[in-house]
Amino acid sequence: MIELLYWIGLAAVAVSALTGVIEAGRRGMDIVGVAMVGCATALGGGTVRDLLLDRTVFWITDQTYLIVALLTTLATFIAVRGLRLPPRLFLIPDAIGLALFTVAGTQVALGMNAPWLVASLLGVITGVVGGVLRDVLCNDVPLIFVRGELYASAAWAGALALIGLQAAGVSGVIAAWAGMAVVLALRLAAMALQITLPTYQERE
Amino acid sequence: MIELLYWIGLAAVAVSALTGVIEAGRRGMDIVGVAMVGCATALGGGTVRDLLLDRTVFWITDQTYLIVALLTTLATFIAVRGLRLPPRLFLIPDAIGLALFTVAGTQVALGMNAPWLVASLLGVITGVVGGVLRDVLCNDVPLIFVRGELYASAAWAGALALIGLQAAGVSGVIAAWAGMAVVLALRLAAMALQITLPTYQERE
Amino acid sequence: MIELLYWIGLAAVAVSALTGVIEAGRRGMDIVGVAMVGCATALGGGTVRDLLLDRTVFWITDQTYLIVALLTTLATFIAVRGLRLPPRLFLIPDAIGLALFTVAGTQVALGMNAPWLVASLLGVITGVVGGVLRDVLCNDVPLIFVRGELYASAAWAGALALIGLQAAGVSGVIAAWAGMAVVLALRLAAMALQITLPTYQERE
Repeated sequence: MIELLYWIGLAAVAVSALTGVIEAGRRGMDIVGVAMVGCATALGGGTVRDLLLDRTVFWITDQTYLIVALLTTLATFIAVRGLRLPPRLFLIPDAIGLALFTVAGTQVALGMNAPWLVASLLGVITGVVGGVLRDVLCNDVPLIFVRGELYASAAWAGALALIGLQAAGVSGVIAAWAGMAVVLALRLAAMALQITLPTYQERE
Repeated sequence: MIELLYWIGLAAVAVSALTGVIEAGRRGMDIVGVAMVGCATALGGGTVRDLLLDRTVFWITDQTYLIVALLTTLATFIAVRGLRLPPRLFLIPDAIGLALFTVAGTQVALGMNAPWLVASLLGVITGVVGGVLRDVLCNDVPLIFVRGELYASAAWAGALALIGLQAAGVSGVIAAWAGMAVVLALRLAAMALQITLPTYQERE
Repeated sequence: MIELLYWIGLAAVAVSALTGVIEAGRRGMDIVGVAMVGCATALGGGTVRDLLLDRTVFWITDQTYLIVALLTTLATFIAVRGLRLPPRLFLIPDAIGLALFTVAGTQVALGMNAPWLVASLLGVITGVVGGVLRDVLCNDVPLIFVRGELYASAAWAGALALIGLQAAGVSGVIAAWAGMAVVLALRLAAMALQITLPTYQERE
């Protein structure tokens, strides 16, 4: 289980770093700016979770995460620099990163004995804060607040599924896979069918 | 005293969540974006204070705060959705939230034996950071930095009044009420009389 | 050595507060907004470093930093208010602040037994996060991500020089001075010769 979570975490870091590079690249940032936004996207969610849980920050305990984030950033920068990439191409790795991080974050919070509501929201925070940080650093309104195709809500549903299955006695590994499947399925279905949530629509 | 602080904190969370919902709603965010901005506004100041004091974050220790923030957010979203609300309507609950959070934050910092200057500024941070976070997430220059109607300065005066009264031997409960009264009176008077602080005015 | 680091830290705080005041002043902020942005610029980098290292935040342990930040902010506000200042004037104190903070941050991280890669990046974070925070609060894309005149990269080179020299047996004091010299020399040379790093240049 711990082994599985470790690989999930590394994969999520790599995928998120990639999406951060693409966004930062669009702003004409140089390689250092791109690397910093890439690392903030990749490591931001887990960092905020660890600070909130008063746990040693994961990439300080284990440098592997930091090295994976840096190498992915540099490799992506070199590989796709100057290419004209359709923005929608990155929505699928981004959805995978969301699923991986949400499950990893929820499991870590449960391991620290956080109550279920807090654990599920820390899973959501782990999943979405990296992207929020990326958008704030790029001076945008965070995409997930505006675009209603089930992003944080898909993450929350997956976190709750994981917690519910574990409470029902299902093994941690199976619950983790099921949680990821819920996040991915909801997010991809919402993108395909353009399922959106109600907005506030205050007319001014 | 601890009882009083607890209720003050819950009331401040509810009031701040309400102001976050209104601001986020104006940006056309969907319900999840509104809920995230509402919770960040309600819980952000206290979270930053607890991280700085190396204290367990208050809404992880006690889920009640989180539940109050979520329920207020959802109730406000449902109640006022689509209504055309005058922005000035929310300045009074916002001033109450500022007074409540400043006093609660200062008391918590004093309880952790922070020196008086640090304690007073942690009170100000608790009072204003939620709103700063709300504005950064909505991609605005934080309102309190621009609009000079005694916001952070009212909070600081209240925090110093509380600390001074306690040092002079006044009981904690009375000092807390007095601190809140100072914040509220200064903020409301400044709004009514349009009292502003000097700005930098560098011509370019 | 500890004595030297202490004075380096105080000087870095004063210099950064000054740059924060100038930036905030250009936005027409009032004295409280200016003071808050000045303090965030001066104390932000070290605060993030201390939170990541799970160390008591330096300006809560020792109020001197906070008092220096506040007094510098107020003195700068009063001294230069209304003056028409060329923006490039502040690039030199800013480069000195970068050098001072990077070296102080790297030394603190090494003192907490952080591995070398983490320590060097925490040095960079200490050096640059204050400025990033300043720009996010002023609602800009952080300058260091866009403008390619070796900013974070100069800091990283200096942090690595310091770590390399200490590993080679050079005394901490000499390694600290050498690290600062590397940061300053690279930054000033890059500004003078307009040395920039490659940007992503994705055409859209």
